[in-house]
Amino acid sequence: MEEKVINAALLGLGTVGTGVYKVLKMQEDEMTAKIGCKVRITRVLVRNLEKAAAKVDDPSILTNNWEDIITDSSIKIVIEVMGGINPAQTYITEALKAGKHVVSANKDLIAVNGKELLDAAEASHSDFLFEAAVAGGIPIIRPLKQCLAGNHLSEVMGIVNGTTNFILTKMSQEGMEFQDALALATKLGYAEADPTADIDGLDAGRKVAILASVAFNSRVVFDDVYIEGITKISAKDIRYAKEMGCTIKLLGVARNTDEGIEAYVCPMLIPSTHPLATVNDSYNAVFVNGDAVEDAMFFGRGAGQLPTASAVVGDVFDIVRNIQADCSGRIGCTCYKNLPVKKMENAHSRFFLRLHVEDRCGVLAEMTEVFAKYHVSVAQIIQRDTLDDGCAEVVVITAKVREGDFKTAIEELSNRSSVKKISRTIRVYGK
Amino acid sequence: MEEKVINAALLGLGTVGTGVYKVLKMQEDEMTAKIGCKVRITRVLVRNLEKAAAKVDDPSILTNNWEDIITDSSIKIVIEVMGGINPAQTYITEALKAGKHVVSANKDLIAVNGKELLDAAEASHSDFLFEAAVAGGIPIIRPLKQCLAGNHLSEVMGIVNGTTNFILTKMSQEGMEFQDALALATKLGYAEADPTADIDGLDAGRKVAILASVAFNSRVVFDDVYIEGITKISAKDIRYAKEMGCTIKLLGVARNTDEGIEAYVCPMLIPSTHPLATVNDSYNAVFVNGDAVEDAMFFGRGAGQLPTASAVVGDVFDIVRNIQADCSGRIGCTCYKNLPVKKMENAHSRFFLRLHVEDRCGVLAEMTEVFAKYHVSVAQIIQRDTLDDGCAEVVVITAKVREGDFKTAIEELSNRSSVKKISRTIRVYGK
Repeated sequence: MEEKVINAALLGLGTVGTGVYKVLKMQEDEMTAKIGCKVRITRVLVRNLEKAAAKVDDPSILTNNWEDIITDSSIKIVIEVMGGINPAQTYITEALKAGKHVVSANKDLIAVNGKELLDAAEASHSDFLFEAAVAGGIPIIRPLKQCLAGNHLSEVMGIVNGTTNFILTKMSQEGMEFQDALALATKLGYAEADPTADIDGLDAGRKVAILASVAFNSRVVFDDVYIEGITKISAKDIRYAKEMGCTIKLLGVARNTDEGIEAYVCPMLIPSTHPLATVNDSYNAVFVNGDAVEDAMFFGRGAGQLPTASAVVGDVFDIVRNIQADCSGRIGCTCYKNLPVKKMENAHSRFFLRLHVEDRCGVLAEMTEVFAKYHVSVAQIIQRDTLDDGCAEVVVITAKVREGDFKTAIEELSNRSSVKKISRTIRVYGK
Repeated sequence: MEEKVINAALLGLGTVGTGVYKVLKMQEDEMTAKIGCKVRITRVLVRNLEKAAAKVDDPSILTNNWEDIITDSSIKIVIEVMGGINPAQTYITEALKAGKHVVSANKDLIAVNGKELLDAAEASHSDFLFEAAVAGGIPIIRPLKQCLAGNHLSEVMGIVNGTTNFILTKMSQEGMEFQDALALATKLGYAEADPTADIDGLDAGRKVAILASVAFNSRVVFDDVYIEGITKISAKDIRYAKEMGCTIKLLGVARNTDEGIEAYVCPMLIPSTHPLATVNDSYNAVFVNGDAVEDAMFFGRGAGQLPTASAVVGDVFDIVRNIQADCSGRIGCTCYKNLPVKKMENAHSRFFLRLHVEDRCGVLAEMTEVFAKYHVSVAQIIQRDTLDDGCAEVVVITAKVREGDFKTAIEELSNRSSVKKISRTIRVYGK
């Protein structure tokens, strides 16, 4: 009996594309038993045919012409791992309109145009799956859409960028400064030549937009997410944080509150006893809180060739199962609500604040007076010896305060003559 | 327009059953938007109608007669949360044969008769889902069958019993002895009146059988799993383990080796730096290793009314989505291999060994000579001061050794006159 085969095309043969090609080969012997048929990559779209030739068994499957794929009706699945907004968006949209199913790992695109892509999939009863777009190999999209569907989720948050987690781990464990840790990350291949998207928090912001949309059943796009990177964090901040029982991590946080969705990415202090505080190096972890499941955490490799390919191939297999069971498009867009997204100034946060003040009687009183005026309560305070410039360094952790109020208090403080410098403000994670 | 409704029956209204009833109510307003229709519990099978009456809005849905459910063709889904082998097995089998879909949280039954139940489901193109049978609210079955389907998994292991994890946490953090920690667990409701299934490792063993079957695509049943409980662990063992950089946890381990599947539950030392070492109290966590995803961990509440109900309702919603898409039975039994299960004596382990020996010159040499004879290498050794009885306490951690060889070495050692007592042998986790 001839084996059933479903043809697929791969768009892109970079790190992830090559990984997908490898993993499909690794699964070749078992596919039919596992999912009822074989998946065969019959076309790979690349820019440079020559460069790509060494990466595949049969170079005749390579093409640099999208027409070869979109007009090939034997291709049922398109696997987009080329990245970037365009032409990826055009290719995915055309593929979906042609009734092909699409797997994508493209967080940049989905965080901006997820709705349009899912709508296109729905219109043609196709599958559009994107497990690999968030936290690499860690299963999180399917668990949120299916396993935890019986919950009202109140929060989804975590460490969703491996590059910055590696940098902060080195700063924390070895006392490195940011620039040195970044240089090491670049040398070891954890950071790209242009690390902006990682260190400025943009990559994490895209993942937060996608996670929030799936977790709260309401569309959150990249522009809705407030973002701060880690470039200003110093080894000194990390030392003070430790002294106060905390670790500094770049956290992506999405919270479903009565007044709307909060969605932000920023470096934050979290208690060193929190499970996320021990997620180190390039590992990722996502925490979820729901009214039935309580706390759950998903931990693993948030990037890397094979871990990301693991998520892509999981989606491909799901699509194949849907084709076999004739139920493509079984679970599409799950954003059936239209919740507002809060402005950051209306969110409530705790803050770590490090500042230089004149070292004289009455200065602390002046500071706390300004705080009181804007409803900022002090939870912890450390004052150190006089510095070289005659100033004292004061470090404060506040209680929860409206972001807008805290900002006004800081502005007023920085205009007081007794305050020489506001060295740093970092948010503190807590419910 | 009238809302679509799918009727379901609940078998059992104990802790989990009541939780399922509650969670379905909590989801009532959103169900139609989320999964395309409402799920209505129209029948609940209970033993005592009077006792159950207070737990539901409309006591007329209660029945103590299975016939009321199996003959009711309007009931499409049966949710079995009564536990025990029989009559649960009969009810589930009859329901599946009648074309009803079944969700079950019954690990006792599935660890023994999982194949028969899944075969019955396949025969009638019905769904038989059991996410709640392993690790309560933590999504693990669906991630293994779908998200990680592109992997050859080499290991699935973890802390899958909350009661014993609570007891070991108390022993470790507060120096309690086993009996005191068990008494506390009973008092706080973490241990049942008869705690045998938990403290003897039987509950964890059932979960290991199910996890191994799903992870390795080959049926492993409860009888295949080697099991040791935690009743012999003492505060002293935990103190020595700490000194050697380790924590003692009751681990369920399933490993896919070239010579067959290893499946066992036993107290083990794990390095205190391992993420599982910080999984405390009644929390559960499952670690997975695959050739593509590398390491991944799933953490959360392994038991409890609402967390377990979260998993059950996730399955119910999946069944509803399958009914709507006309693809019931889409993913059935995934055991398409027939791998042998290794006998424990042929597995290789490291051991922690605590023994009392005569405190005289040459005794250590005698001990290590017996070890050498059976290929047991010593990795760490601690010898303490002479005890009251003139003996010395020696604690050893061995390198990896064939279990059968280690057992023979221990037997020979215990017959030597210089060895007064073998106080404890505990396995050490490591790949």
